Amino acid sequence: MNKLEELKKIIDSLNNFAIVSHTSPDGDSMGSILSLYNLLIDLNKNVDVFVEGQAPYKFSYLSGFYNIKNISQSNSRYDCLFVLDCGDEDRLGECKDLLNRTDIIINIDHHITNNSFGNINIIDAKASSVGEILFELYKNLNYKITKEIAECLYTSIVSDTGGFKFSNTSSKTMRIVADLIDTGINFTNIYYRIMDLKTLNGIKLISKVTSTLKIYLDGKVATMKLTKQMLEECQTKEDEAGELVNIVRDIESVEVGILIKEVDIDTYKISFRSKDYFDVKDIALKYGGGGHIKAAGCTIKNKSIDEIEKELIDEIKKAWVKYNEWNN
Amino acid sequence: MNKLEELKKIIDSLNNFAIVSHTSPDGDSMGSILSLYNLLIDLNKNVDVFVEGQAPYKFSYLSGFYNIKNISQSNSRYDCLFVLDCGDEDRLGECKDLLNRTDIIINIDHHITNNSFGNINIIDAKASSVGEILFELYKNLNYKITKEIAECLYTSIVSDTGGFKFSNTSSKTMRIVADLIDTGINFTNIYYRIMDLKTLNGIKLISKVTSTLKIYLDGKVATMKLTKQMLEECQTKEDEAGELVNIVRDIESVEVGILIKEVDIDTYKISFRSKDYFDVKDIALKYGGGGHIKAAGCTIKNKSIDEIEKELIDEIKKAWVKYNEWNN
Repeated sequence: MNKLEELKKIIDSLNNFAIVSHTSPDGDSMGSILSLYNLLIDLNKNVDVFVEGQAPYKFSYLSGFYNIKNISQSNSRYDCLFVLDCGDEDRLGECKDLLNRTDIIINIDHHITNNSFGNINIIDAKASSVGEILFELYKNLNYKITKEIAECLYTSIVSDTGGFKFSNTSSKTMRIVADLIDTGINFTNIYYRIMDLKTLNGIKLISKVTSTLKIYLDGKVATMKLTKQMLEECQTKEDEAGELVNIVRDIESVEVGILIKEVDIDTYKISFRSKDYFDVKDIALKYGGGGHIKAAGCTIKNKSIDEIEKELIDEIKKAWVKYNEWNN
Repeated sequence: MNKLEELKKIIDSLNNFAIVSHTSPDGDSMGSILSLYNLLIDLNKNVDVFVEGQAPYKFSYLSGFYNIKNISQSNSRYDCLFVLDCGDEDRLGECKDLLNRTDIIINIDHHITNNSFGNINIIDAKASSVGEILFELYKNLNYKITKEIAECLYTSIVSDTGGFKFSNTSSKTMRIVADLIDTGINFTNIYYRIMDLKTLNGIKLISKVTSTLKIYLDGKVATMKLTKQMLEECQTKEDEAGELVNIVRDIESVEVGILIKEVDIDTYKISFRSKDYFDVKDIALKYGGGGHIKAAGCTIKNKSIDEIEKELIDEIKKAWVKYNEWNN
């Protein structure tokens, strides 16, 4: 019996299901668990869907959202537990206890690092999202993909592909999205909610941080600064504004974008991004940090923010001279 | 003979082609004309591709970009002229003269208002972009869609659909994009260049304009201001920052976003956007402006920017009271 047949048999023969994903659920988690919740409800099963803490209100447009249970509300046993978009047991947080309250664990994921903790493990690291894997499973098992389920799956895919722009997007992804659009979902509305909506405090923070923008080396290098005072004034956390360092990198002329972020008294975290060719990891390594060629970081202590900026620009200038010597 | 057969006969039998699109070419224009340029070159035709003025450098990654001719460089005659993404003859600007220098005009467009000025007119108002129409034509005519051509067509489609988010995106659009991805194009790079890159001055302007953000009616209404001084300080034009008024509308709590823009001494243009239900056209009409329910505008003179803001907020408050009376 192959995995698909096993899965079919489990869904057909059992009655009490639970569904869960990782802590701090993102769009793929929320879309995946609610798509499966709606599918099992359509099949007249008993289903509990769990998150740790509060489900993010951003996804309240998804069918089934208001039926999500907080893990502290339950101590039931289940015939079968689906764990979605979760690389290992510890990422379940408080929901980990569910693993002891079920007869069968089905682990469906797209993280290449998944440690196959389930009784059945369906891992496809080439899939853009768990939503993409579930779409194929539902289709191969001949389950009806209703408009409600399609909205969940579209949410998964648009979230994990960054709006179909990340390199995990494949032609298969686009064909699945085409099928989802054909169910009649209001995809422009979902796209808007997931990708374009910003919080008020997030916009305020972007305004403050971009006002510190400075340009060096004929516009090839740019810096921005984020202080604790800015976060306080905007009553926000950094992540509400999205990836701030990307704003610097995404300026046309810029090859190296730098965000200098105050984390404590005289302690700064530096994020580096490069666009095409400059190795920012080399700069980060000099300060005991690390990363990749195009994305790296380090922490610098006991210097002022202006000293740090000057020093980093000097290091980059030196590296640039070397780069030009090698490439000319 | 149907249009497709006619087109096939023209391309097969003739040798000297010209291609043109509307003035101030956008992504769909540039992608469309260069896709056809590459296709006709692959078929060993003589081809001139024209724009009025300078072709936007943003699209320099497209194959054929450096072969684009400025219309002032040419007075040749052609067997056949392709006019792409152009609703009427006047939108050709200086390139309009080409209409008198060709035996046959082929007009391919997706604007519903197209006045069918060609000898052959292929108009599909349901297509997201001319790139989408051309993909189907090339395929139905059995022409090879090379990677270079696919890059052009992807550029067209991603530009005119706003990155697959506008409602002109259809399941057919997504299936075409899937086929384009299958040619092996570096679509993430194209997406990034078209959708994410910003100019330095554009970011500076966004920073200044967002710093004027004000919130009213428990966050349901928000305003931003754009002054002539800001444009001078940033050495930029408004459009370098994208649609500024959308930044206000896209704040979570906001239903009505307003941009007050200084255009002359004591003369302000107001842009209104609403998210879901508030009719901003009604407010604009009061000031002699107009528009649609969710997007409207007007001009107000002889008042200070602060007076205008106060007055608009008062008008919106009044309208909101009325709205609530009707809906409760």
